[in-house]
Amino acid sequence: MILQTPYLLFLGDAPDPLSGKVAQGIKDWRPDLCVGQFRQEGCKADLGLPDLSIREAIDAGAKTLVVGVANRGGFISELWKGVFIEAMEAGMDIASGLHNLLTDDPKLVEVAHSRNCQLIDVRIPQVEYPIANGKPRTGKRCLAVGTDCSVGKMYTALAMDKAMRDAGRASTFRATGQTGILITGDGVPLDAVIADFMAGAVEYLTPDNDAEHWDMIEGQGSLFHASYSGVTMALVHGGAPDALVLCHEPTREHMRGLPDYQLPSLKDLRDVALTLARVVNPGCEVVGVSINTAALSEEDASKLCKDIEKEMGIPTVDPYRHGAERLIAELK
Amino acid sequence: MILQTPYLLFLGDAPDPLSGKVAQGIKDWRPDLCVGQFRQEGCKADLGLPDLSIREAIDAGAKTLVVGVANRGGFISELWKGVFIEAMEAGMDIASGLHNLLTDDPKLVEVAHSRNCQLIDVRIPQVEYPIANGKPRTGKRCLAVGTDCSVGKMYTALAMDKAMRDAGRASTFRATGQTGILITGDGVPLDAVIADFMAGAVEYLTPDNDAEHWDMIEGQGSLFHASYSGVTMALVHGGAPDALVLCHEPTREHMRGLPDYQLPSLKDLRDVALTLARVVNPGCEVVGVSINTAALSEEDASKLCKDIEKEMGIPTVDPYRHGAERLIAELK
Repeated sequence: MILQTPYLLFLGDAPDPLSGKVAQGIKDWRPDLCVGQFRQEGCKADLGLPDLSIREAIDAGAKTLVVGVANRGGFISELWKGVFIEAMEAGMDIASGLHNLLTDDPKLVEVAHSRNCQLIDVRIPQVEYPIANGKPRTGKRCLAVGTDCSVGKMYTALAMDKAMRDAGRASTFRATGQTGILITGDGVPLDAVIADFMAGAVEYLTPDNDAEHWDMIEGQGSLFHASYSGVTMALVHGGAPDALVLCHEPTREHMRGLPDYQLPSLKDLRDVALTLARVVNPGCEVVGVSINTAALSEEDASKLCKDIEKEMGIPTVDPYRHGAERLIAELK
Repeated sequence: MILQTPYLLFLGDAPDPLSGKVAQGIKDWRPDLCVGQFRQEGCKADLGLPDLSIREAIDAGAKTLVVGVANRGGFISELWKGVFIEAMEAGMDIASGLHNLLTDDPKLVEVAHSRNCQLIDVRIPQVEYPIANGKPRTGKRCLAVGTDCSVGKMYTALAMDKAMRDAGRASTFRATGQTGILITGDGVPLDAVIADFMAGAVEYLTPDNDAEHWDMIEGQGSLFHASYSGVTMALVHGGAPDALVLCHEPTREHMRGLPDYQLPSLKDLRDVALTLARVVNPGCEVVGVSINTAALSEEDASKLCKDIEKEMGIPTVDPYRHGAERLIAELK
């Protein structure tokens, strides 16, 4: 699955900025891929990009309209569909991470077929992944693992990838979820892969590479999350990481979606993740801790990172807030 | 997915007894469900059941023809298809765990449709499983976990289930693989479930039950097997076991299909499996060890079990060879 770039980011009639967070993520991490935004009447989200018509976007080189906004009511509205059809008639592909699939809509499928455009639902695997073979691969890999779901694993991997490239080092962010795939244009929608092929999909995503090259693998779920731990396990074994970064959100009161489950400690996460990772890569090390301090003041954020660093004995930062330099310095 | 019983076991033109091991498993564990066997010219397998024609099987009450033999060459032969069509025309369903799906064959689909019969490919999930909710359930659960794939987890769970029922205790074998599903007529084909729904499928398979009732859950893969560990993890968290039995095959020289991987020790398996299981069920205990001694003499088998029991400090038996009584005595 590879999306044609650059993108026109579709915000539609987004009711608030949060509903456009996929588009925001693409703009934050890959501004060079974005020619502009497309907004409809009543849109309450704004990425600060030029507002373009379909024609203007085509003239600016846009190859794919990316649905960067969550839909409401469990269906894709006629208001949106009109734009998607116009975009395809002008020659663009349409890409979406929505639960409601573009390819389930007969009218969109008909237009895509007649115009020879692609409808790309990034929730659906486009590849027949192999069964994992567990063989060592050249190059290096870093995996973000979390005390819970949604604690900042994607942002951690993206921030580390950016810091690596800013430092002139070879690095590739490897997306394993819908938003990550839309941000980078490529990846594996791991939560939608058939069980037997999960680890193989991660091996496929992180192939042999130059000796000094690092894959920054987006984590999913948590080894301690009852609903999704199997997906995380496939990342730990399929990714064969040389380095793990522990990710944590300090204000979370219980595991996401599981009110009766407490979060594990960072030490528990370290011990379990490292034991499992070393089954496949005996040289694996935990190199740092990434704290999502979005809910904290600057002062509280700095103090918390210092306290955790003292307790864990490894660099501890909020890479989105303070930069990922101290984390990538540990990747050797 | 529920198969109508009793069964006619189809052996076709099996080239050797081993190719009929699915049928052998059904006959070993559920002889009461089997009215007879169907063999074709050249068949080298024999279950010791009456050889029946389709008509005789119908008269004996058979509701489903179960394909109990592996096919050759990656296709379902015309020789077999003729029998399947005759069986459907006589009113039977057809069930299969083959990689080649019955439902991919237009002729079989056409006959099934016209005769209102079911073609049941047990490799394909028939249910939309939920996302796991991690909530405690009433009743008890035991899960077989292995140092590797194919070390005897299914036979261990079946032997424990049989010993429980022989002792007058409430127990249900819960199948998670194709052969197990064909043996019991029900279950979840876990390796074919979409990643996000694996743990939920196991919760669905092992619902609330009477306080004294035990589910004997068939294990899959191994937490130490790079290709399939994610599936195993979903069993450990979705199954929420109260008891774990460690399964091992002592002559295995490396992990199945992974020549460069050594098997973990039973102590390593115990420690990792128990740590992970207690995330969901803090009361979980490792209650025993099951050794597959098929490759050993009686004397060697007994000595090995005694030695391991001394090392591990918990009952250690080959439940298929020596009975599972000592294992189920630990289920309280």
